[in-house]
Amino acid sequence: MENLFATIITIGDELLIGQVIDTNSAWMAQELNKIGIPVKRRVAVGDQWDEIWQAIDEESKKASIILITGGLGPTADDITKPLLCQYFGGKMQIHQPTLDHVTNIFENILKRPMIDRNRKQAEVPDNCIVLRNEKGTAPGMLFKKDGKIFVSLPGVPHEMKWIMKQEVFPLIPTLFQTAHIEHRTMLTAGIGESFLAERIAETEQALPNHIKLAYLPNYGMVRLRLTASGFNKEAIIQEIDLHFEALKQAVGPYLVVDNDIPMEQVVGNLLIERNATISTAESCTGGYIAHLLTSRAGSSAYYKGSIVSYANEIKHQLLKVSEETLLNEGAVSEQTVVQMAKECLRLMNTDYSIAVSGIMGPDGGTETKPVGTVWVAVANKNEVKTKLFQFRYDRERNISLTATNALNFLRMLIVDNH
Amino acid sequence: MENLFATIITIGDELLIGQVIDTNSAWMAQELNKIGIPVKRRVAVGDQWDEIWQAIDEESKKASIILITGGLGPTADDITKPLLCQYFGGKMQIHQPTLDHVTNIFENILKRPMIDRNRKQAEVPDNCIVLRNEKGTAPGMLFKKDGKIFVSLPGVPHEMKWIMKQEVFPLIPTLFQTAHIEHRTMLTAGIGESFLAERIAETEQALPNHIKLAYLPNYGMVRLRLTASGFNKEAIIQEIDLHFEALKQAVGPYLVVDNDIPMEQVVGNLLIERNATISTAESCTGGYIAHLLTSRAGSSAYYKGSIVSYANEIKHQLLKVSEETLLNEGAVSEQTVVQMAKECLRLMNTDYSIAVSGIMGPDGGTETKPVGTVWVAVANKNEVKTKLFQFRYDRERNISLTATNALNFLRMLIVDNH
Repeated sequence: MENLFATIITIGDELLIGQVIDTNSAWMAQELNKIGIPVKRRVAVGDQWDEIWQAIDEESKKASIILITGGLGPTADDITKPLLCQYFGGKMQIHQPTLDHVTNIFENILKRPMIDRNRKQAEVPDNCIVLRNEKGTAPGMLFKKDGKIFVSLPGVPHEMKWIMKQEVFPLIPTLFQTAHIEHRTMLTAGIGESFLAERIAETEQALPNHIKLAYLPNYGMVRLRLTASGFNKEAIIQEIDLHFEALKQAVGPYLVVDNDIPMEQVVGNLLIERNATISTAESCTGGYIAHLLTSRAGSSAYYKGSIVSYANEIKHQLLKVSEETLLNEGAVSEQTVVQMAKECLRLMNTDYSIAVSGIMGPDGGTETKPVGTVWVAVANKNEVKTKLFQFRYDRERNISLTATNALNFLRMLIVDNH
Repeated sequence: MENLFATIITIGDELLIGQVIDTNSAWMAQELNKIGIPVKRRVAVGDQWDEIWQAIDEESKKASIILITGGLGPTADDITKPLLCQYFGGKMQIHQPTLDHVTNIFENILKRPMIDRNRKQAEVPDNCIVLRNEKGTAPGMLFKKDGKIFVSLPGVPHEMKWIMKQEVFPLIPTLFQTAHIEHRTMLTAGIGESFLAERIAETEQALPNHIKLAYLPNYGMVRLRLTASGFNKEAIIQEIDLHFEALKQAVGPYLVVDNDIPMEQVVGNLLIERNATISTAESCTGGYIAHLLTSRAGSSAYYKGSIVSYANEIKHQLLKVSEETLLNEGAVSEQTVVQMAKECLRLMNTDYSIAVSGIMGPDGGTETKPVGTVWVAVANKNEVKTKLFQFRYDRERNISLTATNALNFLRMLIVDNH
C-alpha cells in the first residue's frame, strides 16, 4: 500500500506580507498526524489566480490529500471559489441548505440585512461535496480527482477547525486506509540542546529506523519527541513506549514531565494533585504569568489572583515592599521580590506565590543590572526561595523566558515539598 | 527590468507536525516587503534530505532570492548544512572567525566546556559567504547561482533576525535593483467585513491596478491595507496617500487609527498624549489586558498596575465588590465591574481604569449567562461606562476578544473626554 500524505496550501496576501501569523497550518498538521496522515509540505501563496492554480497543480503531485485554506470570504480579494470551480470543470450554483443557513445567521443571530455579497457565499461549484460550516457563512468544499481529494476551507480559525472536525475527519477513513502514528513527548529543563544530545546519544543511536527523535528547544527548555509510524497499532505503541522509557532514564534529573504539556499546565497539575492554590505578584512580566496560568480551563481550582505592580508605588502600597528596600536595593532586587512574594501569599491567602521583578528591555538596563536581569522569588508558608536570572534577548522573549522559568522554579519548590 | 521576488523555505519536522508555529516567515516577509521585495511563496518541509533538496530546486525556479531557515542546529536531526554543501558543489572546512566566536561563547559567556557538536558548527561549505551570527553558534550562509541568491539561516528567531538585519539586508542592494513598495494600513472597529466592503465599494473601485486593497479581519475588528509598488518612490507615495485619504473618508466613524498598530498601542498613545495613567481590574482575562499593555516598551509611562481577581474573595477583599452584589447579581454582572473599576481607580490612583468579568468557557456557562458573556466597565474620575458583550467562541479567542474590545471601549471614553 502506498503511503498517504497531506499537503496544506494557505492562501492570502496577508501571509506573504507577514501581517498575519499562520496558526491554521499548525493545528491542521497536529490533527492530521493524530489520525496517521503525515503532512509532507505546507505552502503559502498570495491572492493571485496563477499562483493558486499552480500551487494546487504542483502540490497534488506530492500528496493524496490537498488541504486549502483561505480566500473564501465575502470580499473582493477572495478568488479561491471561482478558481476551484474552473479547475475542476464545474459550474456555480446556489446550494440551498447553505443559503438557508446564511439567511438564518443574518435574520436570527446577527439581526442585520443580508446583502448580495453574503448571498454569494451560498454559491458553490456543482461538482463538489459541500462541507457544512455552522460557525460562519462560507461553506467548505471537497473535490475528488485521480484518487486524490482537495478540501477548501475558510481561513477563519474557528470556522476551519469546526469543518475539519465535523465534516472532513469523518470522511477520510471512508476514502483512504491510514497508517497509525504515535508520538511521545517529554519536557526537559536546565540543560542545553548540545549537552542533552550528548547525554542521550546512546539511547538515540539505539532507535530503529521507523522511530524518529526530534529536539524542540523553546524558552530555555528542550522538548524531546519520539515519533513512530506503522500499520500495526499495538506493536507501534509497545515499541515506542519502550524507547520512551529508555529516553526518560537517560534524561534523568532534567526531566520535567513525560507529556506534551506547557509549563503552566505542569504547575497547574501539581497544584490540583495537592489541592493547593497559587497567586502571583508580577512586575516585569506585567500579568503574563497570570495569563499563562488562567489560559487553561479549570484554572480557578488553583489560581486565585495576582497583583501586577508595575509602578514602584504599587509595589510599596499594595505589596508592602519597604521604601528603604526600593531606595537602597532598587525594584529589581532579591529583597524586593522576597517582600512581594510574602505579602502576595498573605494578601491572597494562597499556599504558594511567585514574585518577579526585572528589566525586560530594550531600555532601563544599567551597568550592574543590564537588560535581562530578573529576580524571582517563590514562597509557601514555610519558606521563600530566590533566584537571579540573566537573559539576553528582546523584550518579548525576555517576558516569556521570565514567566516560564519562574513557573519552573515554583515547580521545583512544590516537588521538593512533597 | 524583471520583477524581483523572494521565496521562503522553512525546514523542520516540528513545523509539519504542528508543534511549533512559524513566526519567522511572517517577520521575514514583513521586512522583505519594506525593502521592496515581495514574497511570492512560503514553503515548509520536514527534515528529509530529498524533500529539502527538491524544495530548493523548485523554489529557485520561482524567485531570485531563496531564504532558507532551520536545520542548522547542533543536533542529529539537522541536515541542511551538508545538503547545501553538496547542492552547490562545495567542500566543508573550518571557518576560523566562526570557530573563534563559538569558542568565545563557550569560554566566556556560557562558561561550559565545548563539545564536538559545537565545534562542528564552525564548519561551512568553502563556496559560501559566511554570515556572522553574534546571537548564537550557527553561522548563516549565502550562496550564489545563476543570478539568484540562496540564504541559509538558523531557525531560532532572534538569531535569524539578527543575521537578516546585520548581514543579509545590507548585501541585497549590492546584488539586485529593488522596486519600491508602500503600505498604508488603518484599523476599523464596530463594522463587519461585508458591510465595510459595501461602504467603501466606490473608493475600492477607483483604485488603479497597481494599488491593492486587502481586508484583514481579526478579533472583531478589520484592518484595511493599501499596497502600491513601483520604481518612482515619490510618485508612489503621493498616489497611495491620496487613495488612503479617500479610504479614511469612506470609513468615516468606524476608523480607529490610520496606522498599523494594535489596539493596546492606540490606547497607550492616547494616554501618553494626555499624560494620563491607567490600571486594570481583571477577572476573566486573567492578566491578559495587563500583558497587552505592558508588552510595549515604555508602557511604564502610563501603566501602573492591575489586580487580577480571579477568585470572588479577591474581588471582595481587594476590590471591595460587596458580598451582596456577588450574591445577588453574581461575579459576572454590571454592578460587579462597576465596583471593580471604581475601586481599582482609587487603589491604583490612576486617571482611567478598566474592569472585566465574564465567562470564557468551555465550562461555567448558564442559561442566562452563556459562555462568552462579558461585562466591561471603564472609568475615570467623573464617570463609569459599562457594556455587555456576547462572544461565541473558544476560551482563547474569547479572552483575546474581551481584551481588545475592553481596550476599544476605554479608547472611546478617552476620546469622548478630550
